[in-house]
Amino acid sequence: MLPKSLQNLIEELSKLPDIGPRAATRLAFYLLNQKNEEIQKLINAFINLKKIKFCSQCFNFSEDELCDICKDQKRDKSKICVVETALDIIPIEKTRAYNGLYHVLGGVISPSNGIGPDKLKIRELIERIKKLKTSNLEHQTSNIIEIILALNPTTEGDTTTLYLERLLTGPDFRGEKIGIKITRLARGLSKGSSLEYIDEDTLKNAMLGRR
Amino acid sequence: MLPKSLQNLIEELSKLPDIGPRAATRLAFYLLNQKNEEIQKLINAFINLKKIKFCSQCFNFSEDELCDICKDQKRDKSKICVVETALDIIPIEKTRAYNGLYHVLGGVISPSNGIGPDKLKIRELIERIKKLKTSNLEHQTSNIIEIILALNPTTEGDTTTLYLERLLTGPDFRGEKIGIKITRLARGLSKGSSLEYIDEDTLKNAMLGRR
Repeated sequence: MLPKSLQNLIEELSKLPDIGPRAATRLAFYLLNQKNEEIQKLINAFINLKKIKFCSQCFNFSEDELCDICKDQKRDKSKICVVETALDIIPIEKTRAYNGLYHVLGGVISPSNGIGPDKLKIRELIERIKKLKTSNLEHQTSNIIEIILALNPTTEGDTTTLYLERLLTGPDFRGEKIGIKITRLARGLSKGSSLEYIDEDTLKNAMLGRR
Repeated sequence: MLPKSLQNLIEELSKLPDIGPRAATRLAFYLLNQKNEEIQKLINAFINLKKIKFCSQCFNFSEDELCDICKDQKRDKSKICVVETALDIIPIEKTRAYNGLYHVLGGVISPSNGIGPDKLKIRELIERIKKLKTSNLEHQTSNIIEIILALNPTTEGDTTTLYLERLLTGPDFRGEKIGIKITRLARGLSKGSSLEYIDEDTLKNAMLGRR
């Protein structure tokens, strides 16, 4: 009863997360009433998605080899904040309480979902820290490297945080000249909540009170 | 902190109804993780939207001059179901309790929103009925034309229904050989609700019990 092209659009929209068939239908009808140039803007935005790749250093999304944060000379390169997804960078940046770099793990350890440490960017984090230490030694700076573990306060997040803490204080990193300080976001984040939905103040305090 | 092309997509998605900045961000990140061919399907669906125009007879959406329903020779051409939007055709069709044609008004009379009868396809409805009557006279069929007023049971919907009832039983339509029967969907639809969200059975009963 609907034109094929309209049915097809509704189908495609229904595939998107949190959009059921009804919401997809409403969206499609809304789009039908929009001017061609508005639709074209949306189409262009989708086309430009193809430009986006991963930052080769921190695995944030980026249009270039390095993302805007890694490229920024004003940022404190001795601090690396480890997050689950690139999405988590946004609320932390909004607090303006942090001026270091990031490292996107790409998830958390979750045996029930078949996600082991090897599926996350943990090896890349270790290599990145080692490289940073070597560079500090070469430049004879005595900056302490701070790794802030800012994973979501869920069971999997906590497990991953523990795993990383042990790894980063393990044999590979002991007895060397340049120290690593490992901190976590202060609790105050309620158990089971998600970084993405926490208000700025709570997150800011959690960042400032990190230990 | 996000690549421009990603920020732009989030902005464009935020313009859509019922999608706030957070939902838009989640959608954009979801799309980033999709294969290029999936994104391309979505892009094609948007591009094909341009094919869709209005049916010249009933103002349903259509890729051709006439929509699939108006083209269908098996449908009862002596019945016209008047609805607010093309979206309302879908739930009525799903009931399978109606086999006539439709007429999409394009809204309801709403003085507070500056929508008078002249902004709706009412003139076109009148002309359509007159043409149908003339055609019936020519073919010497004595079919009674039934106009089913299936507007949403809201204040504006009721006002528009009353307006149409008076218009269709007014001087233009009196004392002629071929009668017009005007029916409404049976109440049972709860006041203030929306056709789009009513369960099929209720709507089916309302259609069968029309008066």
